[in-house]
Amino acid sequence: MSRDRLIYLPLGGAGEIGMNTYVYGYGPKGKERLIVVDIGVAFPDMDSTPGVDLIMADVTWLEENKERIEAVFITHAHEDHIGGLSHLWHQLGHPVVYARAFTAHHARRKMEEQGADPQEVHTVSPYPEVVEAGPFAVSFMPVAHSIPESSGLVIDTPAGRIVHTGDFKLDETPIIGEPFSPELWAEIAKPGVKALVCDSTNVFSPKAGRSEKTVGPEIERLVKEAKGMVVATTFASNVARLKTLAEAGHRAGRSVVLLGRAMRRMVTAGVETGILKDFPTVVPVEEARDIPRENLMLLATGSQGERRAAVAQLSRGKYLGMSMKEGDLLLFSSKTIPGNERGVINIMNAFSEMGVDIVDDDGGLYHVSGHANRPDLERVHEIMQPQMLIPMHGEHRHLRQHAKLGEQKGLASVVAVNGMMINLSGNRPEVVEYIDSGRTYLDGSVKIGALDGVVRERIRMALNGHIMVSIIIDEEDSPLGDPWVEIMGLPRFGRSSAELVDVVETDLGHVLMRMDAKTLADDDKIEDQIRKAARRSAQDEIGKKPEVTVVVSRLLEN
Amino acid sequence: MSRDRLIYLPLGGAGEIGMNTYVYGYGPKGKERLIVVDIGVAFPDMDSTPGVDLIMADVTWLEENKERIEAVFITHAHEDHIGGLSHLWHQLGHPVVYARAFTAHHARRKMEEQGADPQEVHTVSPYPEVVEAGPFAVSFMPVAHSIPESSGLVIDTPAGRIVHTGDFKLDETPIIGEPFSPELWAEIAKPGVKALVCDSTNVFSPKAGRSEKTVGPEIERLVKEAKGMVVATTFASNVARLKTLAEAGHRAGRSVVLLGRAMRRMVTAGVETGILKDFPTVVPVEEARDIPRENLMLLATGSQGERRAAVAQLSRGKYLGMSMKEGDLLLFSSKTIPGNERGVINIMNAFSEMGVDIVDDDGGLYHVSGHANRPDLERVHEIMQPQMLIPMHGEHRHLRQHAKLGEQKGLASVVAVNGMMINLSGNRPEVVEYIDSGRTYLDGSVKIGALDGVVRERIRMALNGHIMVSIIIDEEDSPLGDPWVEIMGLPRFGRSSAELVDVVETDLGHVLMRMDAKTLADDDKIEDQIRKAARRSAQDEIGKKPEVTVVVSRLLEN
Repeated sequence: MSRDRLIYLPLGGAGEIGMNTYVYGYGPKGKERLIVVDIGVAFPDMDSTPGVDLIMADVTWLEENKERIEAVFITHAHEDHIGGLSHLWHQLGHPVVYARAFTAHHARRKMEEQGADPQEVHTVSPYPEVVEAGPFAVSFMPVAHSIPESSGLVIDTPAGRIVHTGDFKLDETPIIGEPFSPELWAEIAKPGVKALVCDSTNVFSPKAGRSEKTVGPEIERLVKEAKGMVVATTFASNVARLKTLAEAGHRAGRSVVLLGRAMRRMVTAGVETGILKDFPTVVPVEEARDIPRENLMLLATGSQGERRAAVAQLSRGKYLGMSMKEGDLLLFSSKTIPGNERGVINIMNAFSEMGVDIVDDDGGLYHVSGHANRPDLERVHEIMQPQMLIPMHGEHRHLRQHAKLGEQKGLASVVAVNGMMINLSGNRPEVVEYIDSGRTYLDGSVKIGALDGVVRERIRMALNGHIMVSIIIDEEDSPLGDPWVEIMGLPRFGRSSAELVDVVETDLGHVLMRMDAKTLADDDKIEDQIRKAARRSAQDEIGKKPEVTVVVSRLLEN
Repeated sequence: MSRDRLIYLPLGGAGEIGMNTYVYGYGPKGKERLIVVDIGVAFPDMDSTPGVDLIMADVTWLEENKERIEAVFITHAHEDHIGGLSHLWHQLGHPVVYARAFTAHHARRKMEEQGADPQEVHTVSPYPEVVEAGPFAVSFMPVAHSIPESSGLVIDTPAGRIVHTGDFKLDETPIIGEPFSPELWAEIAKPGVKALVCDSTNVFSPKAGRSEKTVGPEIERLVKEAKGMVVATTFASNVARLKTLAEAGHRAGRSVVLLGRAMRRMVTAGVETGILKDFPTVVPVEEARDIPRENLMLLATGSQGERRAAVAQLSRGKYLGMSMKEGDLLLFSSKTIPGNERGVINIMNAFSEMGVDIVDDDGGLYHVSGHANRPDLERVHEIMQPQMLIPMHGEHRHLRQHAKLGEQKGLASVVAVNGMMINLSGNRPEVVEYIDSGRTYLDGSVKIGALDGVVRERIRMALNGHIMVSIIIDEEDSPLGDPWVEIMGLPRFGRSSAELVDVVETDLGHVLMRMDAKTLADDDKIEDQIRKAARRSAQDEIGKKPEVTVVVSRLLEN
């Protein structure tokens, strides 16, 4: 028997929703040839990643083994699957990238923006077309999701067939793209599926998912009944929803306007790649200003409350000459992602102050999810009859629940989180190694490690404020003048009537005066004593212990 | 006719959920005698208020008119109604405080903690007992909510009767406290209600609220079927729920343990004030360690994911010798408040890693809200038949929706947000003045204004990082040595191979060297040029513009 083995290694997306980055390998142990499936990002928040621009998987292991990488496959164009590609492509040794047309279109644009070579992105037709990549033969299986041309991957290896679902739902009437075809899935399953590596996002949703088609009539009714201007927002990449919204506007005799760069870009990409057919005529925003508001239907970016998107700008007043007012309607044809609630609520209240009526997804009336719910997952397990089920894309609780679901049906399963290398060669998934995994932050133009301490310092300054102390020591190791204190993020006055900086300066002056010669000869000792004294002084004055930076300057003898 | 008028002035809680602080006045314009209803807090978050301890209403107007304050009435002991009392009591001129026993119990403890006089808190029996306070005669009308002895206030004035609902739900089987009595409400409404000032929190919930009693059987079933240890969490102040949970544990043959200070304190308060009757025997945690885990039911603090609460500590490992493991069950008998999702989800995933099964409210099976839903509000409007409806306690969108609801039924209404003084004397509510309102932060031991800029500086440091520059200028206005640079919250390396501090120091050294005599004679000019140069240098090196603090030290001629 061959000593070759088939491995699966999630580096992102297994233990979180977002940042999808998966590796498959085949070959002798430690020398497996590799393919990478998706290189996505996650988004930062104030609580844990203030100031950070993007979060990506730590791909150090891949970088160290870049000669073994045969290719990268991108399942679809959502940021959490494609967003890291252009940022990490150089690091991974410029691998060739495969994707379907719509996804490749976006990948190329992103590669270009980051100085990567867009020519390395190759467009692939869906199953049964096959891409050979070392020991792997890969086909793109069309699936329904909330962005065009989403794909699962059929990955054939000498050790058997893997079906990597990507993000998907079962939708027989998806408005755009190929409907779910149980026959196609059965055909793919026929030779036998060794491992089904399967989206877990909606495993806690107990009812079968609803089709994209079901939201159309509801939206149409809502728009028809609206009296003023209608603004609808959803993810720009949900092109099927854009079409539904635009058609609802069109049928209600409204002119359709696209508001926000991503909105215009996605519709353009949809039309150019031939995906978006019969999209109602769009009116430029400059012309929209002359159309009566009751004849307007605006599709705007910003369904997650993003501060710079069109909806947020409208909530603060005028945007490109458009503004909302009493009697207008704002439709969130979307679900708020956990963590974005406050931003969305703030916008809703700003519109409420203008007298704008807000309608949200209202329990599914105006929005459906793009992921497979529990019964849908069970249906897929049933069709695919895999030897093993590897839950993928989800927080730990999702993966665990999905694994349980499989085990109840007798499928060998494992909760494989980022960094766990799984051997799929045998009859059961087997954890064979733990790879250092983690997060890399794109911060401005620099990539920093999540554990570098940079972000921790930011959080501490945000929680505790910051005191800067400057001390000058003369040529004879004596303090020259008093310590100078500056504060940032701290109240000007505490319990004394004097200013906080004056109180701290006085306290530090005393400390400095009492320092012995040995301490004064040692910068580290001075810093340490001054830092402690500054914190004590602040604690006493304002009840907080700030971060403290001490600069000791020494005058040198000439 | 009298020139006296009846006014309503929300200072907190009208335009947000939390921080409830309402004022009523009666008398000649500008000389109305005042009562204050509730003095609550809101809770900070990293996004907008990092480092802040508590958020309270800005009571400057009340302070300026403290001689006119007759009394403070507290409707119930939730922090968003009582939390600011002890912190603002001195500022308001030490007013007398009235509350029912359970609420007064908590108010006194808090007053004592803050050095305020607990004796000024008076216990009042419920309606029909009346407290006279200047021109006001006030009764505490028992209502059901999610904490014992919640009350609406019946406020009689020479201009008519006001019913201020406080937080409430309509619950005919509330487990603890007085059931909702339509007869009592009708009796109170009988003399005619001039204004119904009414909780709006759940106005968007379309179905009638469910009774506290409905969760008992479901929880009991869940606990009975559990195999390992059961830990249940809810707000400690929801004493009725604690009782339900404890009884479910008791009936399943489990020993009940209270975990977390608030949990023990609330049960003690409930027993001492006679509210909590027949609470199952509680086992101290020290004894619990010797009881088989399948015979344990722990009630733990931390339903909102609070980092220091019992549940969060259990999610990180051992807490007071207890720990959870594979096969145990954690029940969130609670709803996650918007903004707390991430914290709660992180905890769920930590438990998932331990193999602990998580059950959340699951669409209401294990939790019911303490607020009146839309049909309940309509029922109250119907019973009370007020001349006007003033929506209270809610974000703008809630108040607006509630006002609409009233207007549909022909009730004069107004969306009155914090700072709007409303004249209730006429036939319709009338906005007569705008008072400066806002937020005061308790930050360590200091109160700071929301607009003081302190928190803005913290947010900026968190987003941009901080550079400190120290420059020494000698007696002849010449730079002495090179600038010294320290960084906090910034990456050590940027695009150069040299460290960021070295690059910035070099750049600033050049800037300093080129400065003309006029600039060098002026600290402000030096700071300004150095700040700009440091930001430029960082932008070039790391793609970010940090906050910059410059300290210029001048050596003086002797």
